[in-house]
Amino acid sequence: MAAPHDDYAREPRRNPALRVNKERPFNAEPPAALLVRSGFVTPNELFLVRNHGPVPLYEDLAQFSLTVDGLVLSRLHLTLAELRAGFERVTVVATIQCAGNRRNDFARSGRKVKGVGWEQGALSTGVWAGVRLSDVLSRAQVLEGARHVVFEGDDHCYEEQCGKDYTFKYGASIPLHKAMSALGDVILAYEMNGEVLSRDRGYPLRVVVPGHIGARSVKWLRRITVQKEEAPHFHQQRDYKLFPPSVDWDNVEALWAKTPSMQEINVQSAICDPENGSNPGKGPYTIRGYALSGGGRRIDRVDLSFDSGKTWVTAELHRLHDHGDEPRHYAWTLWSYEAKILPSPCTIVCRAWDAASNTQPAEAQDIWNLRGVGGNHYCR
Amino acid sequence: MAAPHDDYAREPRRNPALRVNKERPFNAEPPAALLVRSGFVTPNELFLVRNHGPVPLYEDLAQFSLTVDGLVLSRLHLTLAELRAGFERVTVVATIQCAGNRRNDFARSGRKVKGVGWEQGALSTGVWAGVRLSDVLSRAQVLEGARHVVFEGDDHCYEEQCGKDYTFKYGASIPLHKAMSALGDVILAYEMNGEVLSRDRGYPLRVVVPGHIGARSVKWLRRITVQKEEAPHFHQQRDYKLFPPSVDWDNVEALWAKTPSMQEINVQSAICDPENGSNPGKGPYTIRGYALSGGGRRIDRVDLSFDSGKTWVTAELHRLHDHGDEPRHYAWTLWSYEAKILPSPCTIVCRAWDAASNTQPAEAQDIWNLRGVGGNHYCR
Ligand SMILES: [Mo]
Ligand SMILES: [Mo]
Repeated sequence: MAAPHDDYAREPRRNPALRVNKERPFNAEPPAALLVRSGFVTPNELFLVRNHGPVPLYEDLAQFSLTVDGLVLSRLHLTLAELRAGFERVTVVATIQCAGNRRNDFARSGRKVKGVGWEQGALSTGVWAGVRLSDVLSRAQVLEGARHVVFEGDDHCYEEQCGKDYTFKYGASIPLHKAMSALGDVILAYEMNGEVLSRDRGYPLRVVVPGHIGARSVKWLRRITVQKEEAPHFHQQRDYKLFPPSVDWDNVEALWAKTPSMQEINVQSAICDPENGSNPGKGPYTIRGYALSGGGRRIDRVDLSFDSGKTWVTAELHRLHDHGDEPRHYAWTLWSYEAKILPSPCTIVCRAWDAASNTQPAEAQDIWNLRGVGGNHYCR
Repeated sequence: MAAPHDDYAREPRRNPALRVNKERPFNAEPPAALLVRSGFVTPNELFLVRNHGPVPLYEDLAQFSLTVDGLVLSRLHLTLAELRAGFERVTVVATIQCAGNRRNDFARSGRKVKGVGWEQGALSTGVWAGVRLSDVLSRAQVLEGARHVVFEGDDHCYEEQCGKDYTFKYGASIPLHKAMSALGDVILAYEMNGEVLSRDRGYPLRVVVPGHIGARSVKWLRRITVQKEEAPHFHQQRDYKLFPPSVDWDNVEALWAKTPSMQEINVQSAICDPENGSNPGKGPYTIRGYALSGGGRRIDRVDLSFDSGKTWVTAELHRLHDHGDEPRHYAWTLWSYEAKILPSPCTIVCRAWDAASNTQPAEAQDIWNLRGVGGNHYCR
């Protein structure tokens, strides 16, 4: 049903406004200023595209079904119609951020990294509609001993690592407690922004795991397996891990198995407008950007500095929804600051603070890591 | 029943090994090396003492009762015997850290802060036994509209702030979702380390809110009030808030009400052995310290640097219990590193990473704040 792994002939059309970071598989980010000027919800044509293989093409949806198996009492096979009719429809506003967001800063900090080169646009926010994963799993009845929920997509991927070739279906897992949590808001989505999912978004069905790295929000979802261990898939086992700065390609091999998989994202923010390298003039200027954190933790403050961090001013925060003290702030917080005058040359630094009093590290070089993930250093 | 606020005549005896940071109210911390050499569980006589007033003295426990009121269907009055007999006894291993831990580093970074002067010993770990707060609240039946759970202690406090005097009972609140969470592990404790609570620990009954700042773990608990708003008490409204670096005593007043209360702690670590200022010699030496994070987030790595952060080595982690991917790592992670040789002078830097890929900021001056809270800069 889905395209073979080398078939890029039937890719969807994309918006030429996107900044293409890789053609095959297709990876592209919205320009930063356009992203935040578009408001809280990112239009489908501007949304981050993070693919690990060719986009599957479904010609006969009547044959589509989702399998739920593993440590469950009742194995399920659900058609899309059964999913829509048999479970409560819910809506979640969630930002999806790639773990590699801002990776290019690592390379610029002086040491090479491997991975798709992202600026600060490797994230977007959607209004997702679908069914609660917890409702589906409750129907299947999770058995004793289960700890992880594995999602397998229909996309065929190919990766080369340390001289070895890997060909596989995309797959990833999350801990069971997140899958079942009433505040966790994990859904199986069939719509974004009020429309059927587009092909790049995972049509016809995807997972949305709010507050976790984007890699766990598996697209083109075909199978959910409840099990004791994490997903055996490449992108769970041999990617999306945050290694110490002492680890390089010559000593990483033994560490893949020992290093925890990334799940919740860290506290993050970026200046999007003015864009890097642009000339915003002398002001007045409304500086804009985004901030977000993992696990639904609220952004409590965004600081801006015009003197490289010696003194700071406080930006104004804008939220689509305020969840108060509940850790369900899964959508980014946009921020703005009215600068009456801008220095020339204009160097602005920003950092965010979340509800757990965490803030960002100052320098990319301080947190350099082989795969260039978790880049949440101050944005300059 | 409890002592009046100016009565320090009946304080308990304390261990002279403690470092006294304030006499009245009594605040003292264990010496850092002794703290980590004592292992995962801190003995009662070494445990951090953080009091906000005189220690209440209970002469007739038969008269003691806990009130549960506010937005509940059934108001409760529970004697200690009823608490012990009427609810399941549970045990939680949790580190309690004061939000002001490491405050002295802020002052040393060049700008004054107000508050008890703590080094890195403003935390300790206990094995707490008692009943689940969620069980007690379920018995009372929480009503619609409830959002916060207020704890009031029996200690009378006095504070002076901006020229005004405040006299009050100690009180603080946590969000309802934390109070009710099955993974939240909030308990009403009557024992620590297998013994009845000592007076400095909150005898006869206290709250333990794992993963949150110590200020929420109210001692000498007498009343629990479920309500829509946070606690009106001084220590919820006018303390334990993390202000921007631009805020000082001349412009803070309007910000108390607008700034969120601290709840979950941020990612933290410290070098405890060798102690600051000691001479550990040329090595070999086993360097030791602790690391912990908020919300039960696991510590995934501790890095040490002997060249001020240019290069890093990885410490060995030691946990009493491994909760896997469940966010219940409420006890600190101890760490050690066998250094074959030590440089002279010996400057070591450490930082921790948690399961949400957060790490510590490099410099105290980067995160300076008026009250000197949330000090989680690299430890040197
Ligand atoms: Mo990603
Ligand atoms: Mo505290």
